Amino acid sequence: MSMELLIEKIKKTGNPTVAGLDPKLDYVPEYMKQEAFETYGKNARGAGEALFQFNKGLIDELYDVVPAVKPQMAYYEMYGLAGLEALAKTVSYAKEKGLYVILDGKRNDIGSTAEAYAAAYLGESKIDDDAAWTDFPADCLTVNPYLGTDGVMPFVKLCEEKDKGIFVLVKTSNPSSGEFQDLKIDESTLYEKVAGLVNEWGESTIGASGYSGVGAVVGATYPQQISDLRKIMPKTYFLVPGYGAQGGKAEDVAKAFNSDGLGAIINASRSIMCAYKKSGAPEKDYAKAAKAEALRMKEDIVRFL
Amino acid sequence: MSMELLIEKIKKTGNPTVAGLDPKLDYVPEYMKQEAFETYGKNARGAGEALFQFNKGLIDELYDVVPAVKPQMAYYEMYGLAGLEALAKTVSYAKEKGLYVILDGKRNDIGSTAEAYAAAYLGESKIDDDAAWTDFPADCLTVNPYLGTDGVMPFVKLCEEKDKGIFVLVKTSNPSSGEFQDLKIDESTLYEKVAGLVNEWGESTIGASGYSGVGAVVGATYPQQISDLRKIMPKTYFLVPGYGAQGGKAEDVAKAFNSDGLGAIINASRSIMCAYKKSGAPEKDYAKAAKAEALRMKEDIVRFL
Repeated sequence: MSMELLIEKIKKTGNPTVAGLDPKLDYVPEYMKQEAFETYGKNARGAGEALFQFNKGLIDELYDVVPAVKPQMAYYEMYGLAGLEALAKTVSYAKEKGLYVILDGKRNDIGSTAEAYAAAYLGESKIDDDAAWTDFPADCLTVNPYLGTDGVMPFVKLCEEKDKGIFVLVKTSNPSSGEFQDLKIDESTLYEKVAGLVNEWGESTIGASGYSGVGAVVGATYPQQISDLRKIMPKTYFLVPGYGAQGGKAEDVAKAFNSDGLGAIINASRSIMCAYKKSGAPEKDYAKAAKAEALRMKEDIVRFL
Repeated sequence: MSMELLIEKIKKTGNPTVAGLDPKLDYVPEYMKQEAFETYGKNARGAGEALFQFNKGLIDELYDVVPAVKPQMAYYEMYGLAGLEALAKTVSYAKEKGLYVILDGKRNDIGSTAEAYAAAYLGESKIDDDAAWTDFPADCLTVNPYLGTDGVMPFVKLCEEKDKGIFVLVKTSNPSSGEFQDLKIDESTLYEKVAGLVNEWGESTIGASGYSGVGAVVGATYPQQISDLRKIMPKTYFLVPGYGAQGGKAEDVAKAFNSDGLGAIINASRSIMCAYKKSGAPEKDYAKAAKAEALRMKEDIVRFL
């Protein structure tokens, strides 16, 4: 029933946005990379250290103005084991600072295998009850629905049993998302069929707020679909990527919210991480620039709610 | 154009099957776990060591009788960073022994992010041209198509440029695979629409064998769909899960092959890894039991070709 924790943090910060932590080395200030490479070498370990220090600086500035961060797993996997270690340290540090952590991994598989993914990111790694650990203690994971109900239920089970949530891909923000997702089925579309099942999957996870623990990914780049989906899934939290760099505007993403001002969390990644490049701020102030952009984004969006 | 390498290894071994390496600690013989725990502790490191030693033993027996192994990433991610390190060592060791390595990760995302996944598993982790490394040097990756063409092209690009391949989920083996995949669209189904695009995505990657580098996952548990899809995708290699434990029979999976005896590779995981439990072989002979089961499976299938 984890949306309760997210909603609490959104109310506390008055900010329905999430900072994407998708750190390519290109985004990391030069001085920070040099320091990491001098200490650990210009190698995997140095790269991992640079990524983590970059994230740590961002988290230190952002933790009391945004409710959540969303590390995109691909950008850590891209740097191999060192990248994954940076991810583990980032998730733990963000949790320490009180942030809600959404791991964007879009995991999916048949039921028995989905159980393993659920354990990895929403549960525990374990040998037995006396020997368990959690390297990626996230609150929430993104999930791809192509395999249907039995591939999703292991994640839903942890939403029921623990304070965890998921966001299921419904209508993604990318240009070709319509190729399959918009296909017409009877009087409906594939993404509407998925939305229908997201409602069903969430039924057992509805919390005190009235929202379920099974959310939906709905891209900011398709405003008409946002409105339609808001009606189809009244109790579902929306994770909305595509604001800013991908072209989604504040008046578009406003359609993702319910009249209670809740129901959606809007993501921005590069515009926050690389705000210093756009604003011309000195590299040393990259995290302050990120905070300013996060606050600007918040104002841009809440004026429509 | 990586299917060439796979086809070469299939011809050499006369064996169109792949051994799934999805090692839960429960599958690892007790003596092997105890050894790992005594050396490294009953903790993450001990668990990782146990998983790798289990795989190493399997690879040592299997490398000259099967063409390929397919580590399922979830089962390594489940054990956190230690599990991922075991995965990295497993992939490298399998490559050293000459096996073709299919990483089963079902990755998917928007284009820019899919590039990061492609780099992680089919390309390189890199700081710059002088500092690059590969922790997971796989030949091939499974990919989920829900996001459409621009989420798949970064993988196809590496199939074109390097000796790499992918298998795209078309019709999966699990009970609820039909919920979305079988939905009727015009005169067709969603999985047939996906199959049509798999053909298109593969056009630029057709090798000397006539097969493309963009393969398809087609479950053994749906024999009628295998036959239909074989006709729709004549130049596509099929990765067929679901033989054995999930209920797929040899005469079913035989439908996945073309008349040249090529075009498909059949996966079995638990039946091979845990053959010693079923046959009652001593734990020390777990890998020999796995080899015997791999050879039995080969004979079971090739008699229908």
